Parts: sequence; C-alpha cells; structure tokens
Amino acid sequence: MSVTEQARRAREAAGALAVATRTTKDAALHAMADALVARTPEILTANATDLAAGREAGLSAAILDRLKLDEGRVAGIAEALRQMAALPDPVGEVLRGSTLPNGLELRQIRVPFGVVGIIYEARPNVTVDAAGICLKSGNAALLRGSSSAAHSNAALVAALRDAVAGAGLPADAVQLLDASSRDSVKELMRSRGLVDVLIPRGGASLIRTVVEESTVPVIETGVGNCHVYVDAAADLAKAVAITLNAKTQRLSTCNTAESLLVHADVADAFLPAVLAAFAEAGVTVHGDERVAAHSDAVVAATEEDYGTEYLSADIAVAVVDSLDAAIAHVNRYGTGHTEAIVTDSQSAAREFVARVDSAAVMVNASTRFTDGGEFGFGAEIGISTQKLHARGPMGLPELTSTKYVVTGDGHLRG
Amino acid sequence: MSVTEQARRAREAAGALAVATRTTKDAALHAMADALVARTPEILTANATDLAAGREAGLSAAILDRLKLDEGRVAGIAEALRQMAALPDPVGEVLRGSTLPNGLELRQIRVPFGVVGIIYEARPNVTVDAAGICLKSGNAALLRGSSSAAHSNAALVAALRDAVAGAGLPADAVQLLDASSRDSVKELMRSRGLVDVLIPRGGASLIRTVVEESTVPVIETGVGNCHVYVDAAADLAKAVAITLNAKTQRLSTCNTAESLLVHADVADAFLPAVLAAFAEAGVTVHGDERVAAHSDAVVAATEEDYGTEYLSADIAVAVVDSLDAAIAHVNRYGTGHTEAIVTDSQSAAREFVARVDSAAVMVNASTRFTDGGEFGFGAEIGISTQKLHARGPMGLPELTSTKYVVTGDGHLRG
Repeated sequence: MSVTEQARRAREAAGALAVATRTTKDAALHAMADALVARTPEILTANATDLAAGREAGLSAAILDRLKLDEGRVAGIAEALRQMAALPDPVGEVLRGSTLPNGLELRQIRVPFGVVGIIYEARPNVTVDAAGICLKSGNAALLRGSSSAAHSNAALVAALRDAVAGAGLPADAVQLLDASSRDSVKELMRSRGLVDVLIPRGGASLIRTVVEESTVPVIETGVGNCHVYVDAAADLAKAVAITLNAKTQRLSTCNTAESLLVHADVADAFLPAVLAAFAEAGVTVHGDERVAAHSDAVVAATEEDYGTEYLSADIAVAVVDSLDAAIAHVNRYGTGHTEAIVTDSQSAAREFVARVDSAAVMVNASTRFTDGGEFGFGAEIGISTQKLHARGPMGLPELTSTKYVVTGDGHLRG
Repeated sequence: MSVTEQARRAREAAGALAVATRTTKDAALHAMADALVARTPEILTANATDLAAGREAGLSAAILDRLKLDEGRVAGIAEALRQMAALPDPVGEVLRGSTLPNGLELRQIRVPFGVVGIIYEARPNVTVDAAGICLKSGNAALLRGSSSAAHSNAALVAALRDAVAGAGLPADAVQLLDASSRDSVKELMRSRGLVDVLIPRGGASLIRTVVEESTVPVIETGVGNCHVYVDAAADLAKAVAITLNAKTQRLSTCNTAESLLVHADVADAFLPAVLAAFAEAGVTVHGDERVAAHSDAVVAATEEDYGTEYLSADIAVAVVDSLDAAIAHVNRYGTGHTEAIVTDSQSAAREFVARVDSAAVMVNASTRFTDGGEFGFGAEIGISTQKLHARGPMGLPELTSTKYVVTGDGHLRG
C-alpha cells in the first residue's frame, strides 16, 4: 500500500480518534498492553529474525542491544502503555475562555493534531511508545522505523492494531510504513494536507533532510551540543560533579554535555580537578591552549570540536574570560538544546538564563535532566530543539493543537 | 545590504530585545507612535510617490485606497501602537511550574522567538502593526512588504527605527527588506538559523510558495474557504441574517463565508429567503441542482466552486442530506479557517464543533467574528490556518516560544 493511501486511512481514523472519549482511549491502551504480553512469543520470534540479520550485517553490539527484545523488555514496554492510560487526557482541555463584550462565548480548546508521522531509528520500544502517545492524544500514527527492526516492528504493530480494533477504535490509528526504502520517507514528507506534523527522531542528517525537504510541518528534535559553564562564582566541587555527570552518565543521549566552558578566574583551581576526573572516566578532552596547559593528555581543540555533538567519551573544553564570552560561545556553537551554569551568583545565573537561547537552561544541575520523564510528563515523544509549537521535552499536550469554539445566538458583525 | 546581513543584524538586536523590560518596550512603542505623527509630512510625500506610480501602473481603485495614507490614517496607525503598549507583556509569563520529587525547580517561561520574518501585501499599516507587535513580544522584525508600497514603507520604517534607537533599543529591531525583487523573499526563506519563524500574509499562491520552499519554520495564514451550514433545526430568520452577514459584511477578508450548506429538510423553507437576500445584495449564487430549482439566477456550481475562496460577491451553495454530509463537505473542501453552524439543536452543534477540523467553529454566529480584535486580543499578526504552534487569530503570546529553566543545588542524574 502506498504511503499516501496509508495517510488517507490515517486521516479517516483520526476523525474517529478525535471524538473518542478518554475512557475508550484508555481501554485501548490497556488492550494494547495486554496484546503485547499475550503475543510475546511471536514478537520475540520476529525480533530474533532482525537480530540475526543485524549480526550478519555487522551491526555493533550497542545497536544490537538496543534492538534486542526479551520477555522482560516487552513487559516493560507494555507497562509504559498502562502508565500512559493513567495520565490525564489533554484533549478537550479549555485553555482560554471568556464572554466577549457582545455576549459571544469564546473557548479555546485542545484538539488532536489528526495524523502524526514519526521517523525514528532502531529501538522497537519507540514503535509502541509513539503509538501509545499518539493514541492517548487522539492522533493517528504513521510510524516509519528502521529497516533493521522491520520484523520486530511489524509484529508489535500487528498486535497493537488488533487491540485497538478490539477496543472499538479504527485499527488504522496505528500504521507502520515500509522501512525497506527511502521512498516511504519521501512520500511521507510530501503528504501535506494528509499528515499534520512530522517528528524526525534520529541523527543530525535525518533531521536536516526532513527539515529541508518536508512540506509537512516538522518538529525538529534531538541534536544536542549541550554546554556546562563553570562560572567565576561556582562551587567547584559541585562543578566537577555536575560536569562529570553531564558528560558521562550516558554518552549517547542528546542531553549529554559535549562542551565545557570555564571562567578564567577559576581555571587554575577547577581544571586540574575536572581533567583528573575525566582521565579517570576515560574521557578524551579536546581543549584550547589554556586548558592544555594543565595536562599533556589534552588534545588540541579545533573550531569543529566546539560545534560537535560527539555522543562519545569526548568533550570540548575552553577557558572564557567572562560570562558574556560564555554566553556568546554557547549561542554561537550550541544547538539550542540544554545548557547548564554552575554558579553561586544570583546575577550570573539570571543573566545566563535570560540570554542563553536554548530549550532548557540548568542552574546548578546536570544537563541530563532535560527529559520528559525527569520533568514529570509521564510520556515523551522527543525533545524539540525548535522554537515553534514545542520546545524541550514533548509530552501529551505538545501533540495537540487547539480550536476556537464561539457560541452566539444569531450574532452578526457590525 | 543582503538579507542575510540584515538577518544577522536582526539576530544581534534580538539578543537585546529578549532581555528588555516591558517599561523599555512600551516606551519604544510610544516613541514610535510619536515619530509617526511628527513625521507625517515626509510619510505622506513618500506615499504620494507610491500612489502616483500605482496609478500609472493601473492598480485598481480598491488597491490604491488600501495603499493611500492621510493624516487621519497615520494618526490611527500611531494610536494602534499606543494601544499595543497598554497590552500585557507576554514575555516572562510562567506557563508551567513545579518542584520535582528530587527538589529541582522546574519553570516553563515565555520567551521571544528572536527574529520574525513577515511577508505581506500592499497596506502600509501592516508595516507598523507588524513592527509594533514584534517589538512588544520581544522579537526583531524583518519586514518584506509590497514593491507598490516601497516608498511609504521606507518612510515609516525610517521613523520607527529612529524612535526605537531613541528609546535605547537597537534600531535593527525593525528592518525593511528590499521589495524590488523576489530574491529577498528567497533569501529570507533560506535563512534558517538566523530567522526563527516566517509569517506569509497574502494570497494563496504566496503562502503556497513559502510553505513549499522555506526551510525557516512557517506559520501559514489566511486562506479562508469558510462555510455556513444551516442545520435542519436552524432558526431560519437567524440563518438568513448570519449567512448574509458572513458573506457580505466585507467581501475580501479571509473570514468571509464562501460556501453555504443547507440541510435538505429546510431547503424549501430557507432557500427562497436567502436567495432573495443574496439577489438584493448583488451576490451571485453558484448552486447545485436542488438550489437552482429555487431561482433562475443560480449559476450551476462546478466542483471547483466548492473549493474556491472567491473574495468577491459570489457564493457556492449546496443542499446536503444530513449533518454528516455537511461535516464531510466542510472537511473536504474547507481550508481549516472558520465554519459556522446555525442550529437550535444542542446535539447537532456539539457534533459539528467536535468533527469539523478548523481553526474556529461558530455556533449561531457569523464567520466574520474570527479576528484578533473581535476575540479581544488587542493586536493580531494574522490568522493561522495551520495546526502547529498557533491556530486561529494570533496575538502577542503566539509570537513567543518557551524556555525551561531548571534550578538545583548540585543535582546529578542517578
């Protein structure tokens, strides 16, 4: 079936989803969870096929691990659906309401987008998460996963669709797109009018392609060249701990720190400690001359280093002469994801927060906290690094639009 | 100066605007108003040049009237700026706030977009309105007006820039782009990273071009194929009045009704009255066979008529057999702007409101009410017909993004 035909069916399904009550949607989410558990054997068989092909194709151990499902992981994925059912329904929330001077009653109400397209990478849990978040927010989902997870995704989506239909909602609320060619991505990007929003989750090149070529509105996600700035007034012990946590708590996430800026006033006191900590953690430091002066292990940083999202045990480090210089550096090289300042100075924190142009700004906390789960959203579809519509972690409300409802009694405009 | 260079300067100015207090911004708005009044003579001289060129180029009387400025109109434009100063500042509003279980303090705060590009047509008042709304919401404005208003816009912007600078904000907060060639639009559309959002205000073809070609995020505005649906349970006298108001109160606005749907049960009672009213008002009716049966003046409607935004004294009329058929017609041919139902039935109104996929749905009121001024927003930059970010009339809050500020005391992710 063509993507356009799938999108048409999704649009049709979206009509029914938009008017579905929370009770119906939550019942569907529980049915989806039950189906995944009940059909775990066929899901694991399909997953084994993907794993075998992946091994043959020489995928890395890390990628194979992300691809791998077992009984426990399937149960965990199912449990996430049940937790989604427990979240409040964003649809129908009245965001603004007033009676106008002429007696017209104005209400701005949350409504689903309609059809949401999601393009993502290997992990099969994203398939279920995305389907669940879309259904809870009243949207039909068009899922374009990775070809390396094609069998797993097909088995998961087959179970989900049966469950959705069994709960009285259209099976086409959840559809998997062909992952075997790039054509399905292209067709999806040109489905303006059928698809309301496209969310690419993945590497910088995928996101750039979608942003460049899509006529469907896009929510850009995930590329994070996150900075930690250690201010002149920082508590240096906290600064070492935060920097280390931001860099090493997980290397491959978008909220991992990739750059460290150190105020010149504390460079001599701070750098030896943090460089020792990095050395112990196996992190390669790419630094400028003032950083290199403190350790032979420092690799000379190039201009490119300061603009790189390493996603590895590397960090770019620079000494800056002022708070102003730190802010300018962040706004020049950053990707607008998350930046942290470590300082005990109220005025420095206030200044940094106001002038750094990013989705999230941390004061005396690790960059790793930018996350829908950590923020208490209960569900997350990605972290937006654009300013339009949603910025930062996107939960259920971010998957909705609004509608004005205006009620009168024969009102005419004069 | 190239658009890219102008965008760079706007970005620079946006840094200062983002941290400007309301007091400073409001003072700038008043200074802008004062400057327009003080410099009315030079503005009118420039406008006379545009008007002479427009007459020579054979512009219609209607367009020349929209282009024309006089002392009263300039005073009105200045007054709009003063009214903007009286509106609350959206920047800094805390939209969400909580203390997370680990003690982190989470705040979601409204911040300006940064740089807003606006592409619009002849009316010079839009130049000032857009500059004012952007400044009030903390954004730098890149204004690309019509070449037919080039001299007027240059004179207006010169006055505005001097006033902004005099109020202590960067003059580059307001910049006019070269209107003499299409290249400036192209360059603007490719200024991703420098320009945060692009708002095309104009005809369907401009909007389509921008949507297709822009890599800068776009907010689609203004194309309105608005419907009035007269339900089986309608008060027919109200229905005639609403239909007539929606079609004829102003012909050329995006919230003008372009299509009328009539439930078959009331067609015989309603159509003669509304057709007579249309005839009297000089409106040409393009109708299906069941409509044509009531009057020889009805022109046979084509498929195209139902999808047309006439912006003229024409209306497409169809008889539908059910509420379902009306909703399906609206969702098929509509542009997602505004639709009205006339009915005394609660259930019909509820169904129509829930299932019609448009920015605004009117119950027993004219479509003409979809308007920032009517909604009480105080200022409007356009009416969004897309679902991402803003839907319906866009006021000051719709020109902002958000930022998460997370404050801890050495918090690490475990």
